[in-house]
Amino acid sequence: MTSTPNPTAAILIIGDEILSGRTLDSNVNTIAKFLSALGIDLNEVRMVHDIEAQIVSAVHALSAGYDYVFSTGGIGPTHDDITADCMAKAFNVSIEEHPEALRLLQERADQMGWELNINSRRMARIPHGADLIKNPVSAAPGFQIGNVFVMAGVPKIMEGMLSDIAPRLKTGRKVLSRTLKLSYVGESWAADVLRAIDARYDDLSLGSYPYGMAQGEFGTQLVVRGQDATSLDAAVSELRTALEPIVEEGRARNPQARLEEITA
Amino acid sequence: MTSTPNPTAAILIIGDEILSGRTLDSNVNTIAKFLSALGIDLNEVRMVHDIEAQIVSAVHALSAGYDYVFSTGGIGPTHDDITADCMAKAFNVSIEEHPEALRLLQERADQMGWELNINSRRMARIPHGADLIKNPVSAAPGFQIGNVFVMAGVPKIMEGMLSDIAPRLKTGRKVLSRTLKLSYVGESWAADVLRAIDARYDDLSLGSYPYGMAQGEFGTQLVVRGQDATSLDAAVSELRTALEPIVEEGRARNPQARLEEITA
Repeated sequence: MTSTPNPTAAILIIGDEILSGRTLDSNVNTIAKFLSALGIDLNEVRMVHDIEAQIVSAVHALSAGYDYVFSTGGIGPTHDDITADCMAKAFNVSIEEHPEALRLLQERADQMGWELNINSRRMARIPHGADLIKNPVSAAPGFQIGNVFVMAGVPKIMEGMLSDIAPRLKTGRKVLSRTLKLSYVGESWAADVLRAIDARYDDLSLGSYPYGMAQGEFGTQLVVRGQDATSLDAAVSELRTALEPIVEEGRARNPQARLEEITA
Repeated sequence: MTSTPNPTAAILIIGDEILSGRTLDSNVNTIAKFLSALGIDLNEVRMVHDIEAQIVSAVHALSAGYDYVFSTGGIGPTHDDITADCMAKAFNVSIEEHPEALRLLQERADQMGWELNINSRRMARIPHGADLIKNPVSAAPGFQIGNVFVMAGVPKIMEGMLSDIAPRLKTGRKVLSRTLKLSYVGESWAADVLRAIDARYDDLSLGSYPYGMAQGEFGTQLVVRGQDATSLDAAVSELRTALEPIVEEGRARNPQARLEEITA
């Protein structure tokens, strides 16, 4: 069966703190799940330093290669926040104070009883022609320029911005998945069965992910993914049948060998 | 002061399970900390699908751009494990069964009382001219081809492989860091001080990372990084002095405002 291909996307994580190992990134995983639910295919991720040449070059490559790009990080008020300037440069536009962004920052400062200082005000600088992205946590907005969505790096703020972005995106067919857990059987024993079924279902992908390994429980999670529920169900049913003798055989090596479907 | 630049590195994460959002990657963070301790600068990360064209193109770009590349994922025994073949293709060499890799797999199978099946045996296929990387967990080796270190995706195995790789790497000057925590003061209030000090110390980098934001405790972590301990100490001391009036001022807005050094 044929269908319109899903929109494609890439993520660009900007920040020294990720590459130095100081911070474990969780934004890739959050955005990946968000896109998956919308039927948008995430095809590539890049992580770079807060360095203009790196950011501009990654934006050029990713915005040309995919329908959407989602960036995180570098839009705060300090000297190391250079993302907005880099985006203006990448799209060859000027950067200027955005009246609505300034209004949002002033409103927040008033609510908090703060003076809006010159550094906070820097966060109103937005590349020419960009549309704002709402920040429900701390007001300072992100922005959309071309097909690039520029978000904050703080996970809570980034998540808030995704809600404002969702209605702007073309969606595709959600990728469905079912997971079988093959316990106490190494993946190499199931490999022939997996290869045969993967080859027969062009519209599905079948992944095999070992876990455990050293001691204690070990085994493999088998994940079948695809857009068509009927095809998915047929493949899973075929897989279960074909794996039965493998599990039986596995019980001779380890009596705890078993196969079950899990929600993963 | 001048010194020899540190070796540079990139990471290539290979795997549908990361891009689908099914698995939160932790290997980037583990490798980043490993490289940081050796004085090797991690400059870029890419994450791609188990797709030949994507893998080969990323290997070409990263191995040409950096001293070292570390890849994870796709070296198991199933149909979706295509990394070894892609590396052979990227380096334009053949791929063949490696006698020592086969011996290691056979030894492990004997120890476990298993027959070495044809799929496990696939894990002995190594690009021509590559050197093996020891796998202390489950025997199936990784390999080094050119400046690329090809490792397993399972975190425990990947960590084991890093120990075998460490002695092969040129090292640099470790990047030292000190962290000040500015509590109950927004980063915009400290931005002028940070900018001034960052501009004066060419050999250091100064990062500002807000936390909290919504309610409860909020503030900013200020991280000073550099190779020279004397310079680092001078900058931190200068920073503390310059931030004192900012904290004092901050206490007028929030009596809990304070500055302290933390180990982060």
